[in-house]
Amino acid sequence: MSTFAPRPVPVALIGLGGVGKAILSQLLSPPLNSRFNLILIANSRQSISLPLPAAPITPTNFSPILEQHGNPLDVASILSLLSNHPDAPGIFIDSTGSDLIPSIYPQILAMGINIVTPNKKAASSSLSLWDDVISKTYPNTPTMYYGESTVGAGLPILSTLKDLVATGDEIEKIEGVFSGTLSYIFNEFSKVEGGDVKFSQVVQIAKDKGYTEPDPRDDLSGTDVARKLTILSRLIPTSPALPEGYASVPTQSLVPDVLSNASTKEEYLERLAEGDDYFDKIREEARKEGQVVRYVGVIDLKQGKVECKLGKYPTDHAFATALKGSDNIISFTTQRYSPRPLVIQGAGAGADVTAMGVTSDLVKIHERLTTRA
Amino acid sequence: MSTFAPRPVPVALIGLGGVGKAILSQLLSPPLNSRFNLILIANSRQSISLPLPAAPITPTNFSPILEQHGNPLDVASILSLLSNHPDAPGIFIDSTGSDLIPSIYPQILAMGINIVTPNKKAASSSLSLWDDVISKTYPNTPTMYYGESTVGAGLPILSTLKDLVATGDEIEKIEGVFSGTLSYIFNEFSKVEGGDVKFSQVVQIAKDKGYTEPDPRDDLSGTDVARKLTILSRLIPTSPALPEGYASVPTQSLVPDVLSNASTKEEYLERLAEGDDYFDKIREEARKEGQVVRYVGVIDLKQGKVECKLGKYPTDHAFATALKGSDNIISFTTQRYSPRPLVIQGAGAGADVTAMGVTSDLVKIHERLTTRA
Repeated sequence: MSTFAPRPVPVALIGLGGVGKAILSQLLSPPLNSRFNLILIANSRQSISLPLPAAPITPTNFSPILEQHGNPLDVASILSLLSNHPDAPGIFIDSTGSDLIPSIYPQILAMGINIVTPNKKAASSSLSLWDDVISKTYPNTPTMYYGESTVGAGLPILSTLKDLVATGDEIEKIEGVFSGTLSYIFNEFSKVEGGDVKFSQVVQIAKDKGYTEPDPRDDLSGTDVARKLTILSRLIPTSPALPEGYASVPTQSLVPDVLSNASTKEEYLERLAEGDDYFDKIREEARKEGQVVRYVGVIDLKQGKVECKLGKYPTDHAFATALKGSDNIISFTTQRYSPRPLVIQGAGAGADVTAMGVTSDLVKIHERLTTRA
Repeated sequence: MSTFAPRPVPVALIGLGGVGKAILSQLLSPPLNSRFNLILIANSRQSISLPLPAAPITPTNFSPILEQHGNPLDVASILSLLSNHPDAPGIFIDSTGSDLIPSIYPQILAMGINIVTPNKKAASSSLSLWDDVISKTYPNTPTMYYGESTVGAGLPILSTLKDLVATGDEIEKIEGVFSGTLSYIFNEFSKVEGGDVKFSQVVQIAKDKGYTEPDPRDDLSGTDVARKLTILSRLIPTSPALPEGYASVPTQSLVPDVLSNASTKEEYLERLAEGDDYFDKIREEARKEGQVVRYVGVIDLKQGKVECKLGKYPTDHAFATALKGSDNIISFTTQRYSPRPLVIQGAGAGADVTAMGVTSDLVKIHERLTTRA
């Protein structure tokens, strides 16, 4: 036998918020720590090269170290560090919420640096940026971009869609509850067993539990769901073009007209109850038909439509019965998976599962870079 | 830009039953036909090298061509064809139900030939054979073995479990309905809304619809489920050893004592109704507790148990409400996915979806072999 041993791949991690910290924690622990060589971490202001001369970095000690010993963030020098590493090609993990870094993905990829990211911006904004990313990645070049965690966090949503497409299945429809926040809100507001809780109360509870963005309108606008549909849609050869990305997706907002003039988050939250009549009516109408209300994203290839909307589902539908808490549920109806779809369900948000989506992408790149002797 | 273009990988396909034919069909169609170079097909008696001198092979013309122009099957010469191909390393697809071919996987892998298979034998029989396969595959060598379709057909079950394990999640429990046949039988026999159909009637209908093996006892023995649990269990570092594979898994048989002396398939089918009392009692007992009956496989890492058994589930449990037809449903409870599990559901049997499990493995190998320039 030869003495084959896959080498560790160099990795730089930018962005150390909740998800970034969870990625760091997974990367520093077995079994991932033997596959990767973390050569740099950075937050939005500072970066530090690794390993440190003294004690090793840990998920708990990095913050004061970065504060005291970090250098001002300089993306160009991070990229040069990665591309000149003796074990290059390496991987750039963008765990920021930045718009700026995604805009330079094409340049990063052109340097032969692979990218893994939970940041939805590049894949869900203008088609020209996304086309530029595609032109600079496999199979057009040997360089890779992976963004599994941009839809469904750690759930295998993009990988499943890629498998269906790559093996020649024909996608007919993708339908799902893609927002953990909106899943929770409607699972509580419109229950199979009934109930008369007010929409404003549910939103307030969701906010208090930390399930919403600081301004809940960022969830209720549906924009996050529209971004996810854009990402999925672009993996399907026969789907609509969406030139402006998520902004091209017809998206029903859950901020009712009566509240559209609330100018601040505070005013909106204060006046939240003014929207209750609007949602009461919707729930009542559904209830009369024996249905519940869910906020869903739909890609319907037969109709050539991509949209985010409030949908009504019978009380024995999986979106009504099987869906719990803040879970995502996504169903794929295809030529092979019909009439019954392939369904994937589980937590679609949270730092640990989102980080897992990122680190499982890292593993795939590691395997692809180290399979040949 | 360089003129990077991933090369087609040479593939030999052995086994041309229902699944083999569906694999052939997918391999000969876009988009897979540009990724792979099918250099040989074989059934259990004959093989033929490709391309043919005259017309191209198709999923409909291969059978008479093989009959008239094929050579007697000689596995050694197939392996030598693959390993001497100018574009080696190639892939050997074992779509047979054979015991013999899996027993030589270690030799095939030692030649640097990658293996993809829907055949459960190597991964679910003796641990020594499986250990031998592992020792001859990545990360111990550059050679790969993939068997996604051995559990859940085209559903992403093994890939999801591998991702969870590789990223450091801790598996607590895997529980599911793993047999399409037994899913159908119990979804019909023990419904949420009740009903008094006899077990023997449901088995007869399932047999008439072609959902069962020619001898339904091959499904009702639970052996197929025990094989699937063995395959899953061996991917989990902390799971029980199962030295004899599926034969080490405690497995409840659905052939009741009163029928255990039926010596032939015909006698068994004739006397099927003698077992109805047994199943009526089980259903009635569950019904009194507001539960339904399902045949499940369970890997419980906290209890260190792997078992196949009749389980009882509340009528609002996903195994009762969400499960339809002959679908599989598999739930993963892990440190990250708890208390609510990650759940995957959909058709778990059928030629097209099983073939998709095989061809999605081929794609992964193709990517791993062709990523570097």
